[in-house]
Amino acid sequence: MNLNRYRIGAGAKLKLKAFDPADTNGIEDKKQIEDEQKELLERLEEQQERLFASRSHGMLIVFQGMDCSGKDGVIKKVFRGIDPGGFRAHSFKKPTEEEAQHDFLWRTHRSVPARGQMAAFNRSYYEEALITRVHGTIDDKEARRRLKSIRHFEDMLESQRIRVLKFFLHISPEFQLEKIRDRMENPEKWWKFDPSDLEERKHWKAYQDAYEDAIRRTATDASPWHVVPADNRWFRNYAVLRTLVEELEKLELSYPQPRRDVAVRMEELKEGGSSEKS
Amino acid sequence: MNLNRYRIGAGAKLKLKAFDPADTNGIEDKKQIEDEQKELLERLEEQQERLFASRSHGMLIVFQGMDCSGKDGVIKKVFRGIDPGGFRAHSFKKPTEEEAQHDFLWRTHRSVPARGQMAAFNRSYYEEALITRVHGTIDDKEARRRLKSIRHFEDMLESQRIRVLKFFLHISPEFQLEKIRDRMENPEKWWKFDPSDLEERKHWKAYQDAYEDAIRRTATDASPWHVVPADNRWFRNYAVLRTLVEELEKLELSYPQPRRDVAVRMEELKEGGSSEKS
Repeated sequence: MNLNRYRIGAGAKLKLKAFDPADTNGIEDKKQIEDEQKELLERLEEQQERLFASRSHGMLIVFQGMDCSGKDGVIKKVFRGIDPGGFRAHSFKKPTEEEAQHDFLWRTHRSVPARGQMAAFNRSYYEEALITRVHGTIDDKEARRRLKSIRHFEDMLESQRIRVLKFFLHISPEFQLEKIRDRMENPEKWWKFDPSDLEERKHWKAYQDAYEDAIRRTATDASPWHVVPADNRWFRNYAVLRTLVEELEKLELSYPQPRRDVAVRMEELKEGGSSEKS
Repeated sequence: MNLNRYRIGAGAKLKLKAFDPADTNGIEDKKQIEDEQKELLERLEEQQERLFASRSHGMLIVFQGMDCSGKDGVIKKVFRGIDPGGFRAHSFKKPTEEEAQHDFLWRTHRSVPARGQMAAFNRSYYEEALITRVHGTIDDKEARRRLKSIRHFEDMLESQRIRVLKFFLHISPEFQLEKIRDRMENPEKWWKFDPSDLEERKHWKAYQDAYEDAIRRTATDASPWHVVPADNRWFRNYAVLRTLVEELEKLELSYPQPRRDVAVRMEELKEGGSSEKS
C-alpha cells in the first residue's frame, strides 16, 4: 500500500473536493493494520533514538485542520511511545497581546526543534494566513505575502537540516457536526465544547478555500503537504504514523561513531587490566 | 550635510576599499556638531516615545564590524538617554551548544523586537555567514544560501512592520592595531583584551571579502546597509545617531487617538460633577 496519493508536492493543483475525507485507501477494517501499526510504533521509537543520538536533523511536524479534525487526538496516539526527552508538543491558541505585537513567525520559531529533537505543532504559523484571512483581519494580498514568507522560512529550516512535515487533517462538515453534537450532549465532554466552533463552522467554505490556497502555495518537493482523510480516526492515525516513520527512515540516520578517545581509553583499560596481572 | 553616501541599497556594487574609514564627511572638528548631537538625542527620545505609544512599528538596529570597531561603544553613546522600557541591547557571542543545534536564525529571532519596541544587536545572525565562512566551517555555497535566508527573513520583518537598520562600522587595520595595543598596555583595559583578536586579525582580508559579499547580497531598498566610517569615534556615533533619527522620523509616527470610551468617561465625569452640584 502506498500513501503517495495524499502527498502534495510543488506545483500541485490541489482541489480538496477531490479528496474523500472518509477514504481509507482500500483498507476495510482497522484490524487489518493492527500488527503493522504496532510495528510502526517500534520503528518510530528506533528512529527517534537515532535522531537524538546523531543530532544530524531536527523534525518539525505541523498539524492543521478544521475544529474537531483530531489534531489533539493524533498527537496523543502517534507519539505515545516516544521519549519525552527528545520530543515536545506545542499547541498554539490565540496569540497573547505580547505575541501579537511581534512579527507573525516569532512565537512559533521559538518552539522549532533543534537538531536531534522532534516537535509537533498543534496549529502553527499557518493560522496567521488562515483564520485571519477568513475573518478579514488581513486581505488576500497580505495572506499571499505571509504564505511566501512561510515558504522561505521552511526553506531555511530545510537547508538547516530541520525537516518540516505538514499534515492537513481532512474531515467532512458532517463529521464535524457529529463531533460538536457529541461534545454538547455528553457531560464528560463538555469541557471540550467551545461555542465558537459553531460560529466558525459557518465559514466552512471560506476555510476550505484558504486551506487550498495555503497548501498550494507552500507545498514544495522538499517539504510537501500530506492531506490525510480524517473522518476515520484509525486511518488518520495510521496514515500520519506511517508517513512520519517513512520520512524519518529516508534520512538514513545512524548512531554516531564512538569517539576516538573512547577507543583509546578502552585500550588503556585493557592494558591496565593485563599489567595488574603481570 | 547628507549621509546618503554611506547608504548601500539594492544592487550596489560595494567596494569597501572605496570607503575611507577616517572620513568625517567634511566635518573638521567634533565641536562643530556638538549642538546638533544634543538636538538629535532629544529627537531620538521623542521618536522612541511615539514608537512605544503607537505600537505601529518595531525597530531592529544591527551593528556589525571587526573587533575593536566600537559596537559596544556606539550602543552606549547613542542609546544613553532612551527609556529602557522600550529598548533592549542584545550581544551575541559564540553560540552555546544548545543554540548551535538550532537553525541559524533561531537564537536571534527570539530577541527581535515587537512593534512598539527597539532593539540593538551587537553582532547578529550575520555572523553565521561571516566568522563561519572565514574559518571554513561553511563553504561559499552555504554562506550564499544563508545570506539568501537572511534577506528573506528581513523581508518578512519589514512586511510585518519591524524595520531593520544595518550598520557596518568600518575601521582600518591600523586603527584596530592601535586599540589592541591600548588594551594590552593599559592595566585597566586588560579585561577588554582577548588574545583571539590577534588571531582573527590575520584574516583581515578574508573578513573584508566576506563582509563585502554579505552587504551586497542583503542590501535592499527597504533595508539598506549603512557603511559608517569608524576610525573617528565621534563621527561614528554622530552618523549612526543621525541615520537612526532620520529613519524613525520617516515613519511619521503619531500618538494614538484617545479611545472613544475615554471621551465617554470624561463626559460622564463632567455630568457626574454637575449633578452633584445641582
